[in-house]
Amino acid sequence: MKVLIVGGVAGGMSAATRLRRLMEDAEIIVLEKGPYVSFANCGLPYFIAGEITTRDQLLLQTPESLKARFGLDVRPNQEVLAIHPEQKTVTIHRDSETYEESYDKLILAPGAKAIIPKIPGLDRATNCRQLRNVPDMDAILQKIDQHTRQAVVVGAGFIGLEMAESLKNRGLEVTVVEKASQVLPSMDEEMAAYVKNELIAKGIKVITGQSAVSFEEEGKKIRLEDDTVLDSDLTLLSIGVQPESRLAAEAGITTGIRGGILVDENYQTSQKDIYAVGDAIVTKQQLTGEDALISLASPANRQGRQVADVIAGLPRKNRGNIGTAILRVFGLTAAMTGLSEKAAVSAGLQPAVIHVSGKDHAGYYPDAKDLLLKLIFNKETGTLYGAQAVGQSGVDKRMDVLATAIKSGLTVADLAELELSYAPPFGSAKDPVNLIGYAALNLIEGISESIQWHELSAELAAGKQLLDVRNTAEMTGRFKNALHIPLNELRDRLTELDPTASYIVSCHSGLRSYLAERILKQSGYEAKNLDGAFALYQTVRPEEIIHVSLDHNA
Amino acid sequence: MKVLIVGGVAGGMSAATRLRRLMEDAEIIVLEKGPYVSFANCGLPYFIAGEITTRDQLLLQTPESLKARFGLDVRPNQEVLAIHPEQKTVTIHRDSETYEESYDKLILAPGAKAIIPKIPGLDRATNCRQLRNVPDMDAILQKIDQHTRQAVVVGAGFIGLEMAESLKNRGLEVTVVEKASQVLPSMDEEMAAYVKNELIAKGIKVITGQSAVSFEEEGKKIRLEDDTVLDSDLTLLSIGVQPESRLAAEAGITTGIRGGILVDENYQTSQKDIYAVGDAIVTKQQLTGEDALISLASPANRQGRQVADVIAGLPRKNRGNIGTAILRVFGLTAAMTGLSEKAAVSAGLQPAVIHVSGKDHAGYYPDAKDLLLKLIFNKETGTLYGAQAVGQSGVDKRMDVLATAIKSGLTVADLAELELSYAPPFGSAKDPVNLIGYAALNLIEGISESIQWHELSAELAAGKQLLDVRNTAEMTGRFKNALHIPLNELRDRLTELDPTASYIVSCHSGLRSYLAERILKQSGYEAKNLDGAFALYQTVRPEEIIHVSLDHNA
Repeated sequence: MKVLIVGGVAGGMSAATRLRRLMEDAEIIVLEKGPYVSFANCGLPYFIAGEITTRDQLLLQTPESLKARFGLDVRPNQEVLAIHPEQKTVTIHRDSETYEESYDKLILAPGAKAIIPKIPGLDRATNCRQLRNVPDMDAILQKIDQHTRQAVVVGAGFIGLEMAESLKNRGLEVTVVEKASQVLPSMDEEMAAYVKNELIAKGIKVITGQSAVSFEEEGKKIRLEDDTVLDSDLTLLSIGVQPESRLAAEAGITTGIRGGILVDENYQTSQKDIYAVGDAIVTKQQLTGEDALISLASPANRQGRQVADVIAGLPRKNRGNIGTAILRVFGLTAAMTGLSEKAAVSAGLQPAVIHVSGKDHAGYYPDAKDLLLKLIFNKETGTLYGAQAVGQSGVDKRMDVLATAIKSGLTVADLAELELSYAPPFGSAKDPVNLIGYAALNLIEGISESIQWHELSAELAAGKQLLDVRNTAEMTGRFKNALHIPLNELRDRLTELDPTASYIVSCHSGLRSYLAERILKQSGYEAKNLDGAFALYQTVRPEEIIHVSLDHNA
Repeated sequence: MKVLIVGGVAGGMSAATRLRRLMEDAEIIVLEKGPYVSFANCGLPYFIAGEITTRDQLLLQTPESLKARFGLDVRPNQEVLAIHPEQKTVTIHRDSETYEESYDKLILAPGAKAIIPKIPGLDRATNCRQLRNVPDMDAILQKIDQHTRQAVVVGAGFIGLEMAESLKNRGLEVTVVEKASQVLPSMDEEMAAYVKNELIAKGIKVITGQSAVSFEEEGKKIRLEDDTVLDSDLTLLSIGVQPESRLAAEAGITTGIRGGILVDENYQTSQKDIYAVGDAIVTKQQLTGEDALISLASPANRQGRQVADVIAGLPRKNRGNIGTAILRVFGLTAAMTGLSEKAAVSAGLQPAVIHVSGKDHAGYYPDAKDLLLKLIFNKETGTLYGAQAVGQSGVDKRMDVLATAIKSGLTVADLAELELSYAPPFGSAKDPVNLIGYAALNLIEGISESIQWHELSAELAAGKQLLDVRNTAEMTGRFKNALHIPLNELRDRLTELDPTASYIVSCHSGLRSYLAERILKQSGYEAKNLDGAFALYQTVRPEEIIHVSLDHNA
């Protein structure tokens, strides 16, 4: 059997090597448009930052090493120009000539390409770069010299923010511009607010709710919607990617949303003996059953392996994806899995959400760091839809546990039951994942009721009373109109409360306010917990907070 | 309602605080035999080590703080001497007197106590200590002064090894004595071998397969079975724990294995209105349905919360436990979840096992560390029974993911599908958990066959041929009787092999040998993979390895 693979990075190379392990006698040819195969895409920003120090570390394999170990015929710098499904051949460009290659099976793994918006002047902006591969990386590095002072990153998604950090670490002044009203638009607003704060704290200028409307002076000036003009010596465009599906479409292969290649459960396209995997294909969001595009290395690798299995006759199906992503930005980690709250709302799921703050390991063991978890779930059944987290440490672990739980179809009650490893350097007897399961179960069983940060002003306008139960020493930042009774005094001061009022209770992070809510409820008062409490609210709505000096209020 | 709780640490205190949140008007009295409640048991070795520096960090709550926040009546230094189920009262010892207290509901959370073996001279050994609580910790610290040079730890379980490290960090010479043939007897032998090596590398003397037969000279001399005599200035006894169930048994409450208190799914004992939780109760091993005793903080906390829910009328059941435990010993982390291989064998499950080595994060990102995963599973169905891991970093994350997977009833095929967070500082596009799923699936589908380290000598004796496919530069340590053909030369040198022979293939860690196995199998040779390969074998059977200088073999 002769197998041609178009694309020699994640999905394509996984397919090639797995195929060799299953079919020692197959002729396997990998055609890669670029000069490198099997490179570490996800490492590129870290090389620019100087964290990864040798270029060879990024180049995981070479055509020679792949020949020696796997007997693969890997051809870099060879672009497939056309597919001829009837003849089962492809036309390939090499140097200044073209040639034909036949196939028994053809696997398309062309990946995704950066979206380049149509903005006046962009075509003449010589300082604009993107980052999809090693030549892109080299082009960025080449642009960084002693005259490069100001960088603008257009698009505050995962790659944009990794690059903002990398360029800052290279000594540049960095401005991030994002069209959406928040950074990391795929994350929920209040969680992304922590990322924004970290960027600002580390000296990045963050502009949200603005897009570039023109590039002037060969890109040295970038004009935004509000007529702000940013100076730029180096501009990174990272507004998103789209499937690299032109070749497939021209061969008559059916495409779907945003041009993604449509495949069946076995990665078979609409053309016989042509398969496709990776960023270029349309996959299913497992939690909604909806079509989705996903540009992540892990699914691409998995699909590449699976399509090899399919071709070798093993029983394998694409089950779809829930989607898990993580970002380190300076000292903060942000991660998400499954559906965001807004995605769940868009899918018509009417999700409940809850936030819980915890520590990465036992609070009594040195260097415990705060982390904030968010859970998105069905309030009737407890089914998990998604989770998000931010923190300095331990975020990846909790996200992986929650990704596993969501993928397994667990409920919030099951989260409370998880038996996670506990010794003081690693966790707590009640891990934050257990805690968020307990907290969500309290909501489902009506033991606690909560309102969200974005509901507070409307609730107060409707006559609810905010009660802050923090200790006096914590009251340097305050809500505008809140009663204040420290939790430990609440039982003795219940008579100060109005039995006809309806209370919203807050503390610093939400645990004490829940305790207060329970005291109030059981004492006959109407009370709800401000989910995430003051800490979350001041992060996402800093302009609503009053700062006071305790000396003046002693 | 008046609720008495016997025991004020993990299970008891979780019950008390949850009960208050659910029943504001209940009278809740916590009776604790010792001087402290709600202390961080698991932190005690780290305080002895000097890692946790202030004593207050261990004392999470005081009777005063629990009164102020939860309205609890917490009574330390008060031992319950007797329970009178007919009268619904208990007799309590306080100072030099006793008094009675009545209850509507009684919760027993007495915990477990150290097993003190009957060894001649132990009763006169004034330098022997155990570590279960704060006074124990103080007694150990008091014993450490400038004259304390040599410490002996009897029992190499989790606490014994944490204490070995702690005492070493305090500057003592430490010897660990373990009756079983390995350290960490609950772990499988080959995984525990990594822990043993770490202990030895850090200067701990480790004696396995020996127990103390007598304590002489007031404990200054410890004689072992083989007549070795160890000098000891301070001896820690950590040979295990048993349920503290005397009080329950005397009250006519039915007990089970090793004296553990029997409870139903709602934590109800055989006596009406008496409940029990924590280390003292018999629980179910979820994976086998067998009765089990479990001495871990997390289940105790969960049970405490659940019994409060039961008493408050919420629907809650004890589902049992799979058991997850973790140990940091110097620079190594070892962890396990579910059944060990030997426990699965004991339960009659005929488990298959596989080992996979991986990195804690992307190999191309700085400071990636090796970790070794072991999976125990059913080879017919792919059902997961258990997992173990050792490594410097990232062990806790993989163990928590696998604990979640096992608890969820996932199969090895599902592990391959897990979508775990990947960015270079956190993981790899194929996480070790995915890899072990793939590898196990290869076994199930017959793509790979393996033998285990303990089967090698018998296989070779039966005529199999060992083939080592490492590179020449790696061959400083060798198997005694192995052919050597580097993997990349194997395809060209197949004619050197005997078509009638049966091969066992090894490399350093098992990936290349699997590739070689596939080449051989598809070329008509009989071949199996030595699971875990040379790296595992030399760890668990170092005496079988020949060390050679490559200079002499160039």
